[in-house]
Amino acid sequence: MSGNTFGKLFTVTTFGESHGPAIGAVIDGVRPGMPLSKEDIQIELNRRRPGQSSLTTQRKEADEVEILSGMLDGKTTGTPIGLLIRNTDANPKDYEDLKNILRPGHADYAYLRKYGIRDWRGGGRASGRETALRVAAGAVAKKMLDEYGITVTAYTKQIDDIVAKNIDFAAIESNPVRCPDPEAAMLMAERIKIAKEEGDSIGGVIEVVVKNCPAGLGDPVFDKLDARLASGVMSIGAIKGVEIGDGFQSAIMKGSEFNDISTLKDGTLKSRTNHSGGISGGISNGNDVVLRAVIRPTCSIAKPQEAVTIDGKPTTMEIKGRHDPCICPRAVVVVEAMVALVMIDCLLIQKSISKTQ
Amino acid sequence: MSGNTFGKLFTVTTFGESHGPAIGAVIDGVRPGMPLSKEDIQIELNRRRPGQSSLTTQRKEADEVEILSGMLDGKTTGTPIGLLIRNTDANPKDYEDLKNILRPGHADYAYLRKYGIRDWRGGGRASGRETALRVAAGAVAKKMLDEYGITVTAYTKQIDDIVAKNIDFAAIESNPVRCPDPEAAMLMAERIKIAKEEGDSIGGVIEVVVKNCPAGLGDPVFDKLDARLASGVMSIGAIKGVEIGDGFQSAIMKGSEFNDISTLKDGTLKSRTNHSGGISGGISNGNDVVLRAVIRPTCSIAKPQEAVTIDGKPTTMEIKGRHDPCICPRAVVVVEAMVALVMIDCLLIQKSISKTQ
Amino acid sequence: MSGNTFGKLFTVTTFGESHGPAIGAVIDGVRPGMPLSKEDIQIELNRRRPGQSSLTTQRKEADEVEILSGMLDGKTTGTPIGLLIRNTDANPKDYEDLKNILRPGHADYAYLRKYGIRDWRGGGRASGRETALRVAAGAVAKKMLDEYGITVTAYTKQIDDIVAKNIDFAAIESNPVRCPDPEAAMLMAERIKIAKEEGDSIGGVIEVVVKNCPAGLGDPVFDKLDARLASGVMSIGAIKGVEIGDGFQSAIMKGSEFNDISTLKDGTLKSRTNHSGGISGGISNGNDVVLRAVIRPTCSIAKPQEAVTIDGKPTTMEIKGRHDPCICPRAVVVVEAMVALVMIDCLLIQKSISKTQ
Amino acid sequence: MSGNTFGKLFTVTTFGESHGPAIGAVIDGVRPGMPLSKEDIQIELNRRRPGQSSLTTQRKEADEVEILSGMLDGKTTGTPIGLLIRNTDANPKDYEDLKNILRPGHADYAYLRKYGIRDWRGGGRASGRETALRVAAGAVAKKMLDEYGITVTAYTKQIDDIVAKNIDFAAIESNPVRCPDPEAAMLMAERIKIAKEEGDSIGGVIEVVVKNCPAGLGDPVFDKLDARLASGVMSIGAIKGVEIGDGFQSAIMKGSEFNDISTLKDGTLKSRTNHSGGISGGISNGNDVVLRAVIRPTCSIAKPQEAVTIDGKPTTMEIKGRHDPCICPRAVVVVEAMVALVMIDCLLIQKSISKTQ
Repeated sequence: MSGNTFGKLFTVTTFGESHGPAIGAVIDGVRPGMPLSKEDIQIELNRRRPGQSSLTTQRKEADEVEILSGMLDGKTTGTPIGLLIRNTDANPKDYEDLKNILRPGHADYAYLRKYGIRDWRGGGRASGRETALRVAAGAVAKKMLDEYGITVTAYTKQIDDIVAKNIDFAAIESNPVRCPDPEAAMLMAERIKIAKEEGDSIGGVIEVVVKNCPAGLGDPVFDKLDARLASGVMSIGAIKGVEIGDGFQSAIMKGSEFNDISTLKDGTLKSRTNHSGGISGGISNGNDVVLRAVIRPTCSIAKPQEAVTIDGKPTTMEIKGRHDPCICPRAVVVVEAMVALVMIDCLLIQKSISKTQ
Repeated sequence: MSGNTFGKLFTVTTFGESHGPAIGAVIDGVRPGMPLSKEDIQIELNRRRPGQSSLTTQRKEADEVEILSGMLDGKTTGTPIGLLIRNTDANPKDYEDLKNILRPGHADYAYLRKYGIRDWRGGGRASGRETALRVAAGAVAKKMLDEYGITVTAYTKQIDDIVAKNIDFAAIESNPVRCPDPEAAMLMAERIKIAKEEGDSIGGVIEVVVKNCPAGLGDPVFDKLDARLASGVMSIGAIKGVEIGDGFQSAIMKGSEFNDISTLKDGTLKSRTNHSGGISGGISNGNDVVLRAVIRPTCSIAKPQEAVTIDGKPTTMEIKGRHDPCICPRAVVVVEAMVALVMIDCLLIQKSISKTQ
Repeated sequence: MSGNTFGKLFTVTTFGESHGPAIGAVIDGVRPGMPLSKEDIQIELNRRRPGQSSLTTQRKEADEVEILSGMLDGKTTGTPIGLLIRNTDANPKDYEDLKNILRPGHADYAYLRKYGIRDWRGGGRASGRETALRVAAGAVAKKMLDEYGITVTAYTKQIDDIVAKNIDFAAIESNPVRCPDPEAAMLMAERIKIAKEEGDSIGGVIEVVVKNCPAGLGDPVFDKLDARLASGVMSIGAIKGVEIGDGFQSAIMKGSEFNDISTLKDGTLKSRTNHSGGISGGISNGNDVVLRAVIRPTCSIAKPQEAVTIDGKPTTMEIKGRHDPCICPRAVVVVEAMVALVMIDCLLIQKSISKTQ
Repeated sequence: MSGNTFGKLFTVTTFGESHGPAIGAVIDGVRPGMPLSKEDIQIELNRRRPGQSSLTTQRKEADEVEILSGMLDGKTTGTPIGLLIRNTDANPKDYEDLKNILRPGHADYAYLRKYGIRDWRGGGRASGRETALRVAAGAVAKKMLDEYGITVTAYTKQIDDIVAKNIDFAAIESNPVRCPDPEAAMLMAERIKIAKEEGDSIGGVIEVVVKNCPAGLGDPVFDKLDARLASGVMSIGAIKGVEIGDGFQSAIMKGSEFNDISTLKDGTLKSRTNHSGGISGGISNGNDVVLRAVIRPTCSIAKPQEAVTIDGKPTTMEIKGRHDPCICPRAVVVVEAMVALVMIDCLLIQKSISKTQ
């Protein structure tokens, strides 16, 4: 109810603040008997970890995960998997100066009004640090999806006005921007560096493709697959919009243009086009599921900004904490995780539906 | 779990198919002692009702609602409110020809794969007809929000490439497109008529503004206000994308540009700009909440289309049912209802949180 | 959240008051493609219906159910099943005199304090009338369980101090008490008649047996099968206690006595005794699931009783409404339904768990 | 969904096995700004801890809790509270001999059938060890209830056939049985010692009293306060039955006897008797809430027992692990915690209901 649990059959419940002792999660609904190792999770955490390149924050967190339960002899047992990551490079002192300031773009005022108390140490629960557990849970989800041949791949599609043209999945991890188009990637990296040098930040667009998604996932009416994907992805801090298939472009299309024409072979539908992004009436139709999410420019910037104190006094502030000039390269991993969490959950729900005997 | 219930504390559970005997809903979490009449609900249903103008489908449904429970002497009692709407102009015969055809753009194949059985009569549960109950529940939600001075207003922002410029809420109901800019409205109506004459359909963008929204609504992490709004709005059939505040535009903005600079007066924050759309870190910040949703062009079109039968045979089909050439004018009412449902639910959740005594 | 929905994957949401226009339900999670008729439901409703014999209330309700959705050509479609029962013999006038009286044993005061408003017409939502929908949903659940060979059988085990000795399922419907021991049944009927003549009421115990229950149903920790059964059965108005297997008797047993000794044949466990009532560690163990529930004597009695008015004035009252001198014979059907609802839900949850591939 | 989370607005999610690295919990819904210390929780954990007296298991667990999140300067922040307890005296070797044996009375076979894999190390998730987190969460719940003056007190009411007569709350912690009647306590302790010496175990009954419970808690129909209490208490491993007020005794009472006659003073109801156990129609009525739960004799006994191996071979086994000859003295603390969790949750739900303005 308090928004710290995601999912219905495959669930992840997280806790932890940016500068508290630790962050952690409880993952539930993992199929029993699945081989799982700490490394399976660590490898994804490392992709999200701060300090990977000069394009990201310089906070030094090992983000080393400990599996506390739900395992026997390297296999899952069906009981909940407890995960723990200690915060090792927390530095609340960086935030002492900002303790009484409502930072522009941040949730400081909103939290204060919500709870009457606010953890000022690096944003507390509002920090992007909580996404580490999304990634950890997503790693487990991806492992389960893998058993069905379903893959989830996210990448940076756009930074500022630079758009990836040639999509080559193999290139994604070859550059620090996580862009599948190496040429665009170079331009994007350059653009991020400039923003950093200016003490500013920039945004972008992340695209996700789910391959081998079986038809029939998602539920009619309120739990449509697109509604669940939108909810999961939009719940990531910096994301301000989500679209499926042709998305906002469809406003200027005609029905005769947008409708995907299909063939049916051996019970499997294949469409010539994929304007619908793999979802019809809220249920997967067997084509690739395609989603895009927009990332706002990071709100923490080095540049001096006008702000207001808790007492209502105007002030000027400078943020000294360590921050990402553009969150896209690391957010790619988080978006991928959230989509994986939705997909595995919908798959388990579909499994519980018995069709005609 | 099956996606027919929306909300946590204020919930609506719906049932019913397009061409079955009736559609209905159970609304729960309404505050006891609130005056409520059938007319409060009927007035909103009439806004959504088919056959309002030449721009909408000619199906003749009175959409007359009956309140079955939860009331005593014109006041709510705190127990669930049962609503019933009989289908009076159902005409399954219109769909006999399409019984074995997987219509392009529709959910026919997806439902078949999901359930192994499909109600071919006008799309069954996949029909937009279910949205009548969203509107009915939204009417009750708006009545509750009204007690807090919170208003939710949706309107057509864009049809095809025509965009409303001057936003005058008073003008929304003055034209059949439900556009707040009368001049744009005329152009939009013209564009819809052309699409209709061509046997085709067009899409558009709906914008929603929540005024007097208190700060503190929404929950951290997975149940952010924007995530919940995205989920609610994206669950409407024809919607393919949702954005908050500057949305997709923020991809090309800088942090120094996007961050809203605010003043604090008597504990209330006011921002000079509203790039964030009234939501910071997933929690309302006291500014207007602003959301846009894109509507794909209606999938049912009169033009002949290539299609495939259930047995995999290619065919050509023409849809004879009565359909909207552009769903925006009616979808405005549905989007408004969904946003109202999210807002009242978040408000009740916030009420259950005790702050420092 | 407001307690009008039961279940997780197989859910039933109900609405309606004793003397309002109608009562109804939305059943969700029914497997698609299952043959279902109005009669399947009506036959169970008739077992619960008032006025069956001189032992029960004389209210005349046909309790005729209408199926509003979720069906196509006599088969379920996987979408929610809406059910409606009109109240035809509502007689609010019977309650006018009691409008301002807080009746002993009833929920009048509790509702007033909860909601600040109370539907005085026959108890409103607090009336046993809502159980008709539990029975209707239970009929659908039993139909699904039947496909797995699982049967749920409830009966009157005890009335006052008369206890059924010989349990013959075939005899249950042969007498108006629904007691599987015909001899005890006659004594029980006599005892109920005496209570009725005295203007008083009596209680009893209902026993339920689930046969062919597969091992593995129920979940560890908070959703143990016994916890879920207890919740479902205890939610029936007049029930004040629930026990599994040897239940309260186990307080005076030794571990060496209580532990069931078993054999394992072809992977199936069979126990010589069934002290555990078919549940070990909260999970079904393959033996019959056995539960007992105690029914308090009906609170509505004809005898004059001391009471207090809403204004705090002491008064004497007589209840003129039509009531059951002992609710057991009809409650048998409701308990059976609730157990069926729990069992099918646990079965669907178990189906969603993938074991080792 | 997997049964590892309890509650709706105040929730606790637990993880961990008896002989794994650690057990833990995430508590959510705690009011922000409440003073809370590790000691508040530790003091309750110490009451449940093994090895307190010669009457309990000799396993040596410090059960030292670590608070990982949700706190700032000694106050709760409204975000989830992560708790961690390391297992320090785990000794899986004790269970090596039993690895392939399905122990009588245990959940071994049920888990194996549920998951296809079973953590044989001390029962894994099925061990009573998980109740430590219930107690930890209950400590936080009691702290919140305390702000409303609501107290929850549990005690041993009966061991074998010895029943406490004089209930003196002050005496509960004065004896190792946690019996409020010191004389009965001595007899009970003696009885437990005998069972231990015989290598056997015995059961008992625990009673709980909630004082100062406001009227209006609990929800109609499926979430009645008694249903929720029954669910919470029955979910504790060894409990086989729950009753409210006069419970099973009411089977042999008359309505005129059972109905509590009340007075109303300053809007507060007081009843002369409390047969209903403080709950009418599923909603608290302002009287003390009274519940009893029966504890089966511990299934782990030292005596040789007949058993069966996983392969179906009959065998004889002796349990060498460290176990409680009677779980009542420690279960008192767990039952108290579960009742506290239900009460605070119902209180928060009631807070979210707006009555007439």
